[in-house]
Amino acid sequence: SEVKVRRALISVSDKAGLRELGTFLHSQGVEILSTGGTAKTLRDCGLPVMDVAEYTKFPEMMGGRVKSLHPKIHGALLGMRDNPQHVASMKEHGIEPIDLVVANLYPFKEVVSRGGTHAELVENVDIGGPSMLRSAAKNHSHVAVVSDPSQYEQVIAEMKAHQGRTTGKLRQRLAHSAFLLTSQYDAMISMWLGSQLAADAADEQGLLPEHVQRGYDLSFSLKYGCNPHQKPAAIYKRAEDAKLPFQVKNGNPSYINMLDAANAYQLVAEIRHALDVEAAASFKHVSPAGAAIGTPLTSLLRRVYEVPESTDLTGLSTAYLRARQADPLCSFGDFVGLSHVVDEATALVLKTEVSDGVVAPGFEPAALEILKAKKGGSFVVLEADASYTPPPEEFREVFGMGFAQRRNDLKFDMKHLADLKTGSALPESVKQDLMLAMVVLKYTQSNSVGYALGGQMIGVGAGQQSRVDCVKLAGRKAATWWLRQHPKVLGMQFRKSTKKQERVNARVRYIEGDMSEVEYKSWCSLFNQPPEPLTAEEKQAFLAQLTGVSLGSDAFFPFRDSIDHASKFGVKYITQPGGSIRDEAVVEACQELGISMVYSGVRAFHH
Amino acid sequence: SEVKVRRALISVSDKAGLRELGTFLHSQGVEILSTGGTAKTLRDCGLPVMDVAEYTKFPEMMGGRVKSLHPKIHGALLGMRDNPQHVASMKEHGIEPIDLVVANLYPFKEVVSRGGTHAELVENVDIGGPSMLRSAAKNHSHVAVVSDPSQYEQVIAEMKAHQGRTTGKLRQRLAHSAFLLTSQYDAMISMWLGSQLAADAADEQGLLPEHVQRGYDLSFSLKYGCNPHQKPAAIYKRAEDAKLPFQVKNGNPSYINMLDAANAYQLVAEIRHALDVEAAASFKHVSPAGAAIGTPLTSLLRRVYEVPESTDLTGLSTAYLRARQADPLCSFGDFVGLSHVVDEATALVLKTEVSDGVVAPGFEPAALEILKAKKGGSFVVLEADASYTPPPEEFREVFGMGFAQRRNDLKFDMKHLADLKTGSALPESVKQDLMLAMVVLKYTQSNSVGYALGGQMIGVGAGQQSRVDCVKLAGRKAATWWLRQHPKVLGMQFRKSTKKQERVNARVRYIEGDMSEVEYKSWCSLFNQPPEPLTAEEKQAFLAQLTGVSLGSDAFFPFRDSIDHASKFGVKYITQPGGSIRDEAVVEACQELGISMVYSGVRAFHH
Repeated sequence: SEVKVRRALISVSDKAGLRELGTFLHSQGVEILSTGGTAKTLRDCGLPVMDVAEYTKFPEMMGGRVKSLHPKIHGALLGMRDNPQHVASMKEHGIEPIDLVVANLYPFKEVVSRGGTHAELVENVDIGGPSMLRSAAKNHSHVAVVSDPSQYEQVIAEMKAHQGRTTGKLRQRLAHSAFLLTSQYDAMISMWLGSQLAADAADEQGLLPEHVQRGYDLSFSLKYGCNPHQKPAAIYKRAEDAKLPFQVKNGNPSYINMLDAANAYQLVAEIRHALDVEAAASFKHVSPAGAAIGTPLTSLLRRVYEVPESTDLTGLSTAYLRARQADPLCSFGDFVGLSHVVDEATALVLKTEVSDGVVAPGFEPAALEILKAKKGGSFVVLEADASYTPPPEEFREVFGMGFAQRRNDLKFDMKHLADLKTGSALPESVKQDLMLAMVVLKYTQSNSVGYALGGQMIGVGAGQQSRVDCVKLAGRKAATWWLRQHPKVLGMQFRKSTKKQERVNARVRYIEGDMSEVEYKSWCSLFNQPPEPLTAEEKQAFLAQLTGVSLGSDAFFPFRDSIDHASKFGVKYITQPGGSIRDEAVVEACQELGISMVYSGVRAFHH
Repeated sequence: SEVKVRRALISVSDKAGLRELGTFLHSQGVEILSTGGTAKTLRDCGLPVMDVAEYTKFPEMMGGRVKSLHPKIHGALLGMRDNPQHVASMKEHGIEPIDLVVANLYPFKEVVSRGGTHAELVENVDIGGPSMLRSAAKNHSHVAVVSDPSQYEQVIAEMKAHQGRTTGKLRQRLAHSAFLLTSQYDAMISMWLGSQLAADAADEQGLLPEHVQRGYDLSFSLKYGCNPHQKPAAIYKRAEDAKLPFQVKNGNPSYINMLDAANAYQLVAEIRHALDVEAAASFKHVSPAGAAIGTPLTSLLRRVYEVPESTDLTGLSTAYLRARQADPLCSFGDFVGLSHVVDEATALVLKTEVSDGVVAPGFEPAALEILKAKKGGSFVVLEADASYTPPPEEFREVFGMGFAQRRNDLKFDMKHLADLKTGSALPESVKQDLMLAMVVLKYTQSNSVGYALGGQMIGVGAGQQSRVDCVKLAGRKAATWWLRQHPKVLGMQFRKSTKKQERVNARVRYIEGDMSEVEYKSWCSLFNQPPEPLTAEEKQAFLAQLTGVSLGSDAFFPFRDSIDHASKFGVKYITQPGGSIRDEAVVEACQELGISMVYSGVRAFHH
């Protein structure tokens, strides 16, 4: 199925590589047909060219709108060389078969990107190009169709290797690329027309279209997807976008890293937007284990988090320390989101933690160097384009079905804390905590509930199937966080050889107090003199001192039980959407327990 | 911007509605140009038609491959009526403007669906049709382009309302549809060529393509997406599929219902495949609250689940009862997956539970009637196409990025229970439980761990960020399930007026034992004589009797702590992928605790 190339039709908008290709084809004795600017470029290289108009005996007209749309061209592309009727028609009409088409299209996408006018865009809808590509691709048994300058090298190499012939395999591959290009090209045009319609429509009903094409360009391949056996896997950018919103500055992110990064970055960017402060999030398994803003650490928290007084902290590094220290066991090997350009102080904090990667809107050079050296050079560093806005609708496929929805593009702001149902006006610091909790839960797998205090999430309960389970789960985390400040915990005297993460784990296990015999033995070995147990009574008494805590919930409370439970963990402020048929009982519970509660009016399920 | 229609070009593959349209256009004095079969059909209706070949003075050739690809046609479509140069060109070449194009394309997709040959498929790649559509759509300022018979009515109505004119708005909408059609048409062709290439390639490396188009057709609109403010939202089928794998038999599923259904159905279908038994799953928030196979209920469990001895149970209804009763609080308002055609017995069980909907491979007529009547007629009933297989790769968009991966199409079977690391050969019933746990966790949000006993999940821990948190979370659920069999619980004497769900909740809260004062008061009101508390010692003593439990984990155990914890809940069998650097310590723990452990070798993260 090899085909000798005797005649080529070249008509390209992008002239890259044209001289080399033309020169090669001429050297192979190929006759070249061409149009307008392409013909001129080739002639300027000293190559003989026949104009399409000369061949068809029909002049180019309408400013180039009609050039190659002629039966003598399309007959030459579509005629089957092994069909006697076709051959007879060709002879009758003086049609010479064309064996190679090289065409690329008017840069419609680029004109969209640079905000071209309607008239410019219409003029950049290529008609002749796609027709040539499609005719040649249809007839790929006989014709090779080259639709991108990146293919020239391959075609030249193959013709060289096969005495000026193209192979069937190559032609099939090229035909595939050509139809892919024309389909993407028209998808782009239809999207543009669609957006015009939507923008124009006064009667816009916000319905999704009957037919949808989503186009993607490969950004990078992944080792695998959610699991090692899920190969292949890759990250794509949207065809409409010039680039991916995240640039990989270091490392090879995994599928789950990228999911974490997408959620973590949105979370911190939205907190920055809402509160105009530095924010950090520590993700594991597509939910935040912790998140915080850069409220300065008290001396006590410096001790709890093992941050020497001598360490200079910035707002961003403080935010990360707080995010990481909400649940340091869960945050082990986290993926980090940061709201601001990463400074050296933050990079130095990250350096000492076991972590998978970070996403941020930028990196100071010194910070980037520190991060690149982390984890044997494999620490993932992603730079987010802070100006990026995703398209309004998002698609996902589950079990072969397309799920389409408007992205959760609602931005929380202070008006979502205005509808006070119980209690009196909220202090600013509480508003910050409630805002933090709301945004965090927007990016936490549902159902979710979270406790916040002093600009820090101190317990996030993710992925539960009942509301009260979330309240309990997150409550236990908040309690553990609080008990790390207990004098007996702070007084634990570790052996010098004990490593930082061992100390962190040992304190938490001491607080949880449910060690098995084996575990207890190994735990004891961390001390010269193991501490006395922390009794249930001691824990209870210390927990009773926890107060001023804020609680957020991603959906309403169906019963008052959640409020009763939350009150055991010092909760004095609550935000929730409201809307349960038992709202009244929930309000009553808050009043009894001296809790101020606001309705955000916004449900924030996340899946 | 209204344009009087004086001349129309009609060339359709689908002749539906052609007579009515032709008759209308003729009645409006529109001159009709046409080709081949379309011209014949119109003439058979007694309508005057001019052949394209007569107009272009160029005959149709190559069996219809070249008909309308002529400058006299495309000049008539592309010429701008308000551009003096264009008008002069038209005059010079005897080109009469065409104001309306009616074209649809060779049925390429249908020929793919019916498994056409390569030659048939190539012949069904339409060339002239897309060219006409594209030229007319580009020039939508002057030309109306009709690309589907469903548009005829609208065009006729609008021309009637505007004295034979088309409006700019209509032409823009039609142009949008035309480019959408051509883009989808070419996407289909490119997918076909791509699949040919993939099938042919001996050197297939399993890489994802550089450029991807995913095409979707609307199946049905949703009220909203994950949250009420996420509008619009819809479910689409893949353009390549004839229909959605789920048919809606009743109700209006929500976005989260559909996510639950997709996961629940895959879960039960895979258990059916692996164990050849009836299976059921009870989903909430995209994780199973419970799942089970149809192992007959003991008399004791009938009492615990309040199923009278007189009730006839089938395998499927038993499976659902078990799935629902793992955690009946979480399963309140569940979405149910069933592995087999739903019988009346199962429908009757479902009837009495508060539930959102069900998916199953079919419904006996009596069962369907019962389900349709449920929830005031709004119970969601989805029928799954048991023969459906999704495509190998799946795409999802997060923050505007395309995430592509091979679907988790690995099917668990008995070979995944062959690599025994500790203990002796596993009994068949244990293999069933371990298989159940493995499949369940494949569809549970990660991290996840689950406990199984007697063909039933008795605790599923979903969505956690540390492994041991999953073990504890699911362990508490298993313990609660087990304690529901405690004599003191079974002996609770409710007032006659107490409703079933109230009894279920009251028992669980009695076991949990952490009621607030208010809750305790309301709890007491359910009894004439409130039961004595269940003490921690009583619970501990009863829990010590729980044994023979199987545990599954979606990824390896990083430390032995999970094993130590699990042993408190009667765990004697474990399946996990293995592969931790501390596998040895985990094996040691199992040996100490008399636990048999197999390595599945398969990680099953799910996000």
